[in-house]
Amino acid sequence: MEVNFNLGSLGKSENLDLNQVFDLAIIGSGPAGYSAAIYGRRYELNTIVIGKEHGGMITETNLVENYPGFKEISGLELMNRFKEHALKFDAKILNDTIVEIKKEENHFILRTQNNEFIKSKTIIIATGTKRRQLNAPGEKEFLNKGVSYCAICDAPFYKGKVVGVVGGSDAAASSAVQLTQYASKIYMFVRSKVRAEPYWQKLLKKNSDKIEILEGVQVKEIFGDEKVRGVKLDNGQVVELDGLFIEIGSMPVSELTKHIGVEIDEKGYIVVDKKMRTNVPGVYAAGDVTNLLPEFRQVVVAAAQGAIAAHSAYRFFKEQQ
Amino acid sequence: MEVNFNLGSLGKSENLDLNQVFDLAIIGSGPAGYSAAIYGRRYELNTIVIGKEHGGMITETNLVENYPGFKEISGLELMNRFKEHALKFDAKILNDTIVEIKKEENHFILRTQNNEFIKSKTIIIATGTKRRQLNAPGEKEFLNKGVSYCAICDAPFYKGKVVGVVGGSDAAASSAVQLTQYASKIYMFVRSKVRAEPYWQKLLKKNSDKIEILEGVQVKEIFGDEKVRGVKLDNGQVVELDGLFIEIGSMPVSELTKHIGVEIDEKGYIVVDKKMRTNVPGVYAAGDVTNLLPEFRQVVVAAAQGAIAAHSAYRFFKEQQ
Repeated sequence: MEVNFNLGSLGKSENLDLNQVFDLAIIGSGPAGYSAAIYGRRYELNTIVIGKEHGGMITETNLVENYPGFKEISGLELMNRFKEHALKFDAKILNDTIVEIKKEENHFILRTQNNEFIKSKTIIIATGTKRRQLNAPGEKEFLNKGVSYCAICDAPFYKGKVVGVVGGSDAAASSAVQLTQYASKIYMFVRSKVRAEPYWQKLLKKNSDKIEILEGVQVKEIFGDEKVRGVKLDNGQVVELDGLFIEIGSMPVSELTKHIGVEIDEKGYIVVDKKMRTNVPGVYAAGDVTNLLPEFRQVVVAAAQGAIAAHSAYRFFKEQQ
Repeated sequence: MEVNFNLGSLGKSENLDLNQVFDLAIIGSGPAGYSAAIYGRRYELNTIVIGKEHGGMITETNLVENYPGFKEISGLELMNRFKEHALKFDAKILNDTIVEIKKEENHFILRTQNNEFIKSKTIIIATGTKRRQLNAPGEKEFLNKGVSYCAICDAPFYKGKVVGVVGGSDAAASSAVQLTQYASKIYMFVRSKVRAEPYWQKLLKKNSDKIEILEGVQVKEIFGDEKVRGVKLDNGQVVELDGLFIEIGSMPVSELTKHIGVEIDEKGYIVVDKKMRTNVPGVYAAGDVTNLLPEFRQVVVAAAQGAIAAHSAYRFFKEQQ
C-alpha cells in the first residue's frame, strides 16, 4: 500500500511505503516533533513524523525573539527551518492526524484520520496543547464571526474596530499589543490580575492610549446578530465590541495515549522522567504535552526534549541488541 | 570602579560599572550561559555573563548539524550568533574567569582572575566541562609538541603525517574522521570498543583505508625527542606516530561552587532539579556541568537548560516581591 503525502508548506510530495515497520514514529509536527526527527535520523532510525498542523502553535507567533541563535524570526519561518532540517536527514513527514494507537507484540499501529495504518517499533508523542475555551454563551455561535483564538491570524480584520482580549497571560498581552496595529481600541478582560512577564507589561503600558485593562472581571456572555456586537461581564457591565480574542491558556492533547496505558497527570499532561520516557517501554513524549515544565512552554525547551526523547528511543534499540 | 572589558570575537569593548549589584551573574559563556543571558534580559534582569572562553567547548566543533534550525554551522559561528543575540538584549559580557564565590547577606561576590569583584543577587553556573587527561608518562612533556586535546585546532599541522587518536566516543571518532583530511594514517587506540553513534561508525568504515582501529588497548607511554615519536601500548606494541590526539571525555568544572555549599555528585556534577535549581537559594546551574543528562551533552539541551535556569532566577525575584 502506498499513499501520496504532501509536505505542506514546503510544497513537496512523494510516495511513502506504509507496509514497512518504522523504527520511530513521531506524533506531532511542532518544535519537539521536528527536533526528535532530526535526532532520530542522526541515530539512523527509520523515522516518520505525522502531523496535520505544520509547526504547531508557535506558528501563530509573529515574532520569536527567544530561540537562541535567531534574534528575530517568525514562528512559521522557524518551523520551516526545523522541517527542512529534518528533511535534509531524510525523515519522512506525513500530513495527517493520528486518531488511534494500538500495541501489537513487537510494534505499535497508528491509525490516521484518513484511515492509513503506520507501524512503528517506538513512538514519541509530541502533540502539544490545544486552546482552552471560555465556555460562555455565544462562544461557539460566533466562532469566526468575531470570536477568535488567534490574534496573529485574525488581527488584520479589525482595522479601526473595537476588540476585546480575554486573559492576563503573556499570550493575552502579546495579542493585545499586536492588535494595536489595527484596532482603534482594545479591552483586556482579566479574571484576576495581569500576570504577563515584565517585557509585555511594559508594552501594555506603552500602548495604554489604546489598551484598557479591566481586572477582576469575567466574560459571562458574548452577544451579537450575524456577528459579535459585545460582551456582558459578571459585574453587570456591557462592553460593545466588534471582535473578541480568547487567550486563556491551553490543555495538553494526550487522549490518544490512554489506550496504550500511558500515565497522565491530573491535568492531562503525560508523565515523563528526565529522559522523556513514559511508563510504557518504547513510548516517549516531548514538548508541551509533557508534565515536566508546563509553566515554561518555549521552543528551545521543546526542541531539547525532542532531542532527548529521540536519544532515549535510540538507547531502547541499543539495549535490545 | 570601572573596568575596561573586551567582547572577544565580536571585537567590541565598553566600560562596565562593577559597583552595581547585578540581578543575575552567569558564569560561563557557552550555549547554556548565552541562552540564560538572553532569557535573563527578556525578564528584565540586570544580567552579566563572565567567561574567558567565548562559546566554550562547542567552538572546537567544525560542523554542527544537530542544532535545530541550522542544517550546517560551525560551533564558533553558532556561538557568535548566541552572543550577538544576548548583546541585542543588552546583556553585559565580561571576558574573565571567576576564581572565587562568596555569599554575603543579600548577594554573592564573585572574584575574577584579574581581581575584579562582581556583585549579584543570583547566579547561574554554566561552566561546562574540561578535557580528561590520560595521565600517561610523556603527556605533559609533549603537550603542544605532538600531544593535543583538540583535533579541530591542530589537525592541519599533520599533513601527510601518521597520528593517533585515543578514545572510542563520538568525539574520538569525529576527530579521527576529521584527521583523514590531512594525515596519511590514523590509529585509533580504544580501551574497550568503539561506542560512537552509527553516523560516526559509518564514517569510520568509509575511511578505513586511512583509519586503523585498535580495540582493547591502552596507551601506557608517550615517547619522543623534541616532539612525539610514538606510543607504547599495554600489550607491548610500539606504534610510531607524529602526533597524538587525546579524546577520552571530560569532567565537570564545578570546584568553584563548593565554597558556597552547592551539592555536587560523586562525579563532580552539580545536582539540580528539573527547574535547574541547586540546593542553595538563588544559585542555579545549566548545561554540561549539571548532573541531569551527563551522557547527552548537546547544544540544544544546554540552551534549554540556560533558559530554564534564567526563568527560575526570575521566579526567585517574583517570589520575594
